[in-house]
Amino acid sequence: FPSKQAQVQTTIFTKMSALAAEHGALNLSQGFPGFDCSDELQTLLAFYSKGHNQYAPMAGVPVFKQSIADKTCLFYGIDIDANKEVTVVSGATEALFCAIHCCVFPGDEVIMFDPSYDAYDPAVRLAGGIPIHLSMDAQNGFQIDWEELARSITPKTRAIMVNSPHNPTGSIWTENDLDALAEIVKGTNILIISDEVYEHIVFDGKKHYSVLLHPELRQRSFVCGSFGKTYHITGWKIGYCLAPEYLTKEFQKLHQWVTFSSATPLQYALSDYLKEPAHYLGLSNFYQRKRDLFASAFEGSKWKLLPSHGSFFQCMDYREISDEKDVDLAERLTKEIKVASIPISVFYEKAPGDTILRFCFAKSDEVLLEAAQRLVQL
Amino acid sequence: FPSKQAQVQTTIFTKMSALAAEHGALNLSQGFPGFDCSDELQTLLAFYSKGHNQYAPMAGVPVFKQSIADKTCLFYGIDIDANKEVTVVSGATEALFCAIHCCVFPGDEVIMFDPSYDAYDPAVRLAGGIPIHLSMDAQNGFQIDWEELARSITPKTRAIMVNSPHNPTGSIWTENDLDALAEIVKGTNILIISDEVYEHIVFDGKKHYSVLLHPELRQRSFVCGSFGKTYHITGWKIGYCLAPEYLTKEFQKLHQWVTFSSATPLQYALSDYLKEPAHYLGLSNFYQRKRDLFASAFEGSKWKLLPSHGSFFQCMDYREISDEKDVDLAERLTKEIKVASIPISVFYEKAPGDTILRFCFAKSDEVLLEAAQRLVQL
Ligand SMILES: CSCCC(=O)C(=O)O
Ligand SMILES: CSCCC(=O)C(=O)O
Repeated sequence: FPSKQAQVQTTIFTKMSALAAEHGALNLSQGFPGFDCSDELQTLLAFYSKGHNQYAPMAGVPVFKQSIADKTCLFYGIDIDANKEVTVVSGATEALFCAIHCCVFPGDEVIMFDPSYDAYDPAVRLAGGIPIHLSMDAQNGFQIDWEELARSITPKTRAIMVNSPHNPTGSIWTENDLDALAEIVKGTNILIISDEVYEHIVFDGKKHYSVLLHPELRQRSFVCGSFGKTYHITGWKIGYCLAPEYLTKEFQKLHQWVTFSSATPLQYALSDYLKEPAHYLGLSNFYQRKRDLFASAFEGSKWKLLPSHGSFFQCMDYREISDEKDVDLAERLTKEIKVASIPISVFYEKAPGDTILRFCFAKSDEVLLEAAQRLVQL
Repeated sequence: FPSKQAQVQTTIFTKMSALAAEHGALNLSQGFPGFDCSDELQTLLAFYSKGHNQYAPMAGVPVFKQSIADKTCLFYGIDIDANKEVTVVSGATEALFCAIHCCVFPGDEVIMFDPSYDAYDPAVRLAGGIPIHLSMDAQNGFQIDWEELARSITPKTRAIMVNSPHNPTGSIWTENDLDALAEIVKGTNILIISDEVYEHIVFDGKKHYSVLLHPELRQRSFVCGSFGKTYHITGWKIGYCLAPEYLTKEFQKLHQWVTFSSATPLQYALSDYLKEPAHYLGLSNFYQRKRDLFASAFEGSKWKLLPSHGSFFQCMDYREISDEKDVDLAERLTKEIKVASIPISVFYEKAPGDTILRFCFAKSDEVLLEAAQRLVQL
């Protein structure tokens, strides 16, 4: 049987979570909370399990689309048209897939910055596009090299993938980054596909600079969002895409063939829940405390912590502990000291030989401290 | 902006349901029950809204995959390996999309029988494939012309789309159909993508002949299933794909980039619910009574009812009532007598000029009788 994705394996998340389960390891690999969502959200779901069980409209339940628009307007101080600019999808993964597939023609180039989330490259290839991987440098705080980006633009460049707060590194964009990108795409037909699922998890008083905030970018952007990380419901698989009307039209043409619509009872429950800003405004502090708790346990150890400005990931350099490859070390730690993590090299086309593992700190304090204790003893 | 799907509009289902809502029409267009799922299933969802809110494994929650395998084994008397042959997805639409995309290479031909469900053709095109439309003839009970199919096979034929019970016509396959298809594909590398979402809705004591029942077919088939129609939960968007291990591997490679995984609380609720065969064994009788109730209201009228052997659709020929095109009549009836239906011509590449509308009878008896009363007065 001729495989269309011959070299593709199951994702690193599937692999490490399965390995963690097999070895009874503390699972700091795949990014999901080790705790439940709020009672209030559970109660809403129980409530809407009655009478809200048939197809939602293709683009989403109207009151939910309006809630998403309202929340976005409130948070970013901009206007969003719920009917023309919002599509509800089955998780940010579907948003990314549809955004890529609705605009990438065979032979088109799509630029992404490594380490890049593992779903970008295969989605571009499946659409017949050519992924162009530029590297961000750990020594340099995973900043984007704007000159290299400018040089990499060709007449075939269809889109640029943006991701802030960044998975797997925890770096975030500044206002200058938005300006730099805008400068490069101005006057071109290049689109932006922006993965902002960690929008509400930004630390140290910093701010999330969504591409929505920059008119030059916004008019050409698909913003892929999700409620999984914001409300501790990674298993609900409800996400959305915000895009100007001309792009939303194309996006919805794809979405209607991919999943058609998303789970109705979950949309209704979320619709009510996200009206209350308190449900997300405290999230940065919540995770900053966990980041700091986890980090403090490594003081004086040989682990070198890289800055985590957003997301719920902490990257750590182990060069003083081991000279193994990160994939090998991640596997060995899962089996031996029973702490699972994610090796960073899998997010690169050409891995730079860094010695970095990613740990998810969306876990209970006990799990974080226990994992840290095992790690510092290496 | 260059559109990848320039001529594609929103689906006929979106269009007619929106028109029905706008005009306060009885909505017998889009296929969904006009009643709620059982209290028991609602209670299960409320129960699992607690503690089951993080990512499901990519291929599905293990106990749910086992329930699907067990149900399939029980119903069809065959063996299914829950770990190797089952993938949970976000509705049968995603199953169809991933099945097509994981095996169709650019330039490959995929054969489908018109009238064909509207998601097949665009999914094939998006994968770079070439849809080959063969026609089934209303005069002939929408039977497949096996000789034409045999003649249509080329070295580029990658797959054949199968759909029984058939949407939109309500025709069903017999054992002879399975044999005829097997005869044609035997010795080739041609795959089968079988849409069987109405497997539990077959009338008059007839039986559903799944491609799973024919070893020659099963070894080369993706079977796309769903719980939406079986349990009155079209809005849950939980479906699955059954396929032999070598195809399941390729299917899951696609699924992991498309949605990655499906809603965890819904998977747990269904896992318990589908253990009880009584929850689906009565479904054929339930809908047969509705079919007959609806049909009886047209006795002596000018509407000519086509046979409905399965699904929850009744096709009706209006040639003695109007010479309008079906798309025009469907629109007019929605606006004027406020009964929405689906015109059959949209499911053809080259519509044969039939005068047929499809009505969904998954509605309350009152709605069915009221709709029929309005229709017979034409
Ligand atoms: C879709 S599973 C991956 C979860 C995640 O976003 C991560 O761990 O990076
Ligand atoms: C996915 S909306 C279409 C529902 C349906 O299967 C139909 O009406 O034919």
